[in-house]
Amino acid sequence: MKASELPPAIVRGVSQVDFQVDYRTALCFIVALFVGGWQFGVFGLLGAAVATLTAVVLGVSSDRVTGGLEGFNGTLIGVALVLYFDVRWVTVLLVIIGAIMGSVLTSALVALLGPYNLPTFTAPFCAVTTIMVVGAPAFERIWRGRSMAAPPSAAYPGRELTFTDLWQGLFNGVGQVFFQSKWYVGLIFLIGLAFAGRLVALSALLASAVGIVVAIVLGAPAADIGAGLYGYNAVLTGIALTGTFVVLSRLGVLYAVAGAVAATVLTAFVTDFFKPVGGHTLTWPFVIVTWIFLAAVPAFSGLRRSPT
Amino acid sequence: MKASELPPAIVRGVSQVDFQVDYRTALCFIVALFVGGWQFGVFGLLGAAVATLTAVVLGVSSDRVTGGLEGFNGTLIGVALVLYFDVRWVTVLLVIIGAIMGSVLTSALVALLGPYNLPTFTAPFCAVTTIMVVGAPAFERIWRGRSMAAPPSAAYPGRELTFTDLWQGLFNGVGQVFFQSKWYVGLIFLIGLAFAGRLVALSALLASAVGIVVAIVLGAPAADIGAGLYGYNAVLTGIALTGTFVVLSRLGVLYAVAGAVAATVLTAFVTDFFKPVGGHTLTWPFVIVTWIFLAAVPAFSGLRRSPT
Amino acid sequence: MKASELPPAIVRGVSQVDFQVDYRTALCFIVALFVGGWQFGVFGLLGAAVATLTAVVLGVSSDRVTGGLEGFNGTLIGVALVLYFDVRWVTVLLVIIGAIMGSVLTSALVALLGPYNLPTFTAPFCAVTTIMVVGAPAFERIWRGRSMAAPPSAAYPGRELTFTDLWQGLFNGVGQVFFQSKWYVGLIFLIGLAFAGRLVALSALLASAVGIVVAIVLGAPAADIGAGLYGYNAVLTGIALTGTFVVLSRLGVLYAVAGAVAATVLTAFVTDFFKPVGGHTLTWPFVIVTWIFLAAVPAFSGLRRSPT
Repeated sequence: MKASELPPAIVRGVSQVDFQVDYRTALCFIVALFVGGWQFGVFGLLGAAVATLTAVVLGVSSDRVTGGLEGFNGTLIGVALVLYFDVRWVTVLLVIIGAIMGSVLTSALVALLGPYNLPTFTAPFCAVTTIMVVGAPAFERIWRGRSMAAPPSAAYPGRELTFTDLWQGLFNGVGQVFFQSKWYVGLIFLIGLAFAGRLVALSALLASAVGIVVAIVLGAPAADIGAGLYGYNAVLTGIALTGTFVVLSRLGVLYAVAGAVAATVLTAFVTDFFKPVGGHTLTWPFVIVTWIFLAAVPAFSGLRRSPT
Repeated sequence: MKASELPPAIVRGVSQVDFQVDYRTALCFIVALFVGGWQFGVFGLLGAAVATLTAVVLGVSSDRVTGGLEGFNGTLIGVALVLYFDVRWVTVLLVIIGAIMGSVLTSALVALLGPYNLPTFTAPFCAVTTIMVVGAPAFERIWRGRSMAAPPSAAYPGRELTFTDLWQGLFNGVGQVFFQSKWYVGLIFLIGLAFAGRLVALSALLASAVGIVVAIVLGAPAADIGAGLYGYNAVLTGIALTGTFVVLSRLGVLYAVAGAVAATVLTAFVTDFFKPVGGHTLTWPFVIVTWIFLAAVPAFSGLRRSPT
Repeated sequence: MKASELPPAIVRGVSQVDFQVDYRTALCFIVALFVGGWQFGVFGLLGAAVATLTAVVLGVSSDRVTGGLEGFNGTLIGVALVLYFDVRWVTVLLVIIGAIMGSVLTSALVALLGPYNLPTFTAPFCAVTTIMVVGAPAFERIWRGRSMAAPPSAAYPGRELTFTDLWQGLFNGVGQVFFQSKWYVGLIFLIGLAFAGRLVALSALLASAVGIVVAIVLGAPAADIGAGLYGYNAVLTGIALTGTFVVLSRLGVLYAVAGAVAATVLTAFVTDFFKPVGGHTLTWPFVIVTWIFLAAVPAFSGLRRSPT
């Protein structure tokens, strides 16, 4: 691999969070991160760079590196850790350690999941970030004066659902994949997805809507719905199951809807499961649901995996 | 598959909880559920029907469907959810969502466990129900006015073990597989098992006794022993390891006893592990122990797997 | 297998905790256990003997038995349970049940991990001990008057790090693999490792140092660092990744350092994760990190697995 191939690999490491390789998508995503806050852009790129470099030094096959598949978990590790631990030198250190750990875990999962033809998805990011966040209170230097981030519903518990919650929640479902909760940041991400293909953007938007509907029917707090917290796992699951990893068909769309519903239900489960130890939901629901839904495809004569 | 094959497939989806396909066993089980309470019969059959139909629509191979292997997790999802969330429309919705999720998870586990020649057992039911129960407090419409179901020992903490606890616990260990805690309901299940074979019924009864003995020796609360809470996982493990999945032999019986002991010890573990998040024990101990005991068989020259 | 082969197999079941088969290493380890307290020696050997015998009765291949690979999880189960539940008859019973369970789990993991060429490590010990410790409060006879073991930092929360913490922590990191917290016991273990090879002892000492440095940088409590609690998982990971399971090289040493760092970070995570249910850290961090680091090796052209 030449050194000149590194920057595009790192940039693709941002768009691969949503399974995309188009450089325009990647640029939109980077812009969106910086609009959300300079620290998200800087720490996200730092994570992607460290993860990609680790893969290069250890000798991962170059097609995985240039495709951005070795960087995207690092991106999310950087964004998540700066959100939870603030802009500090110890956070820089944690992002470097975390991105290296995530890189090794990525290769381990490639080996373990290979026989089942399942991608790693964001599992390395989820694992590393959960380890860091749950473990942090043991380390005085990291934790000093910090407290667990509470969901918006903690501040506004009994609030009624408004029209603003609905339309902002739709965009926030796209932005929350990267921990962003401003509707216009979500919109920039959506524009980025549209560069990758209209179907991708449409899937994302519809899946976000499915997440909102399920959350309303089951009675989730309005403030969390408006912040997109019940949508982002549905969004990733929706994109993954419509065309990306499963061939598009009428039954396939129903299957994707079922996946988005399941991801929304799992969002409540993961959130409650991690509460006693201070863990966060992250994209665990998407990872678990999409692994299960893809692993099941060979058993179903009505569905087919996309060639990859 | 013809439409006329569906009803028997659904009915076998009740008896397959205990690995049986005999229609008399299935009818006894259905009678037992209705004797336990009409809602258990109705919601159990609803779950079995939705799960089986999902499998048919997605195109699962018809021998799995007609054997009831695609329905039994749905049965337990229906029974469990109506027990925890009462007879309400939202429970009907949850059972439908849960049975579909359980159906997809079943096919995923068939693919993942196939290389190791392990059946799914009730893992899909355990996973889906744990997700629903732990996640429920996040949803106001589901949770309203509900509280965690407490074990009988919570009401009668220091009670002495009586003879009634012993003999009723023996039958309840069979009935608790389906969440039933009346001794005569357990007896009807046992009669159902006897139709499948005297060995099956004998294994169930002995395994229930092993669970009770272990619980007494280690000092579990009398009220929980009497309710069969330390027996039902041993019952399923015992049936699975004597003839069903392991060839019967002298060493094999010892192996099954060790499995029943392990399932009883794990019952305490799973119960305590899920306490902080409000999860329930379900049949996790059986699933974990029996997977491990079956996966280990090829390493042991003294034991052999049954041909299936 | 002849009966005369059993005693050496059991003795090797003590040294295999640190991946060693040299009988001098094993004798040093046994001496160290008895110096730490007679009960650790007796219960450790009891566990190793029951586990090894179980494997023989079930017919495990004799090369695994004679190499001590069927005994070492039993050793740790014995040492851990006598530490947590004291010298009592119920503890003897639990060690016997636990060693049998651990033996079956070992064979199950051999089958499950075989396709990925991963050893079981101490996972059976971790699983069985976690099950026993978390489940124990449900059983009045086991739990009576007991309480969760608190780390040293609970008694001395804000204490400054001293030079004594540093050098004693270095040795304790080696001894804590067997739950020993006296520096001279750790030293005897280290001498045992030196009989197996100078590289092994050096790896152990350096990995212990890496654990201490990471713990200091991140701000872990001084008392826990001095007790070796942040070192023992790094020690096992360090030995495993330098020569034992990965061919020694310059990049391999860096990889082992990364592994030791990851194991230290995971120590905080596992400790916090198990806190709500009263579980202990044990060697989970080592098991998880080393499985991941070994599973990843085939993806890295710069590293190679040792032939085994």
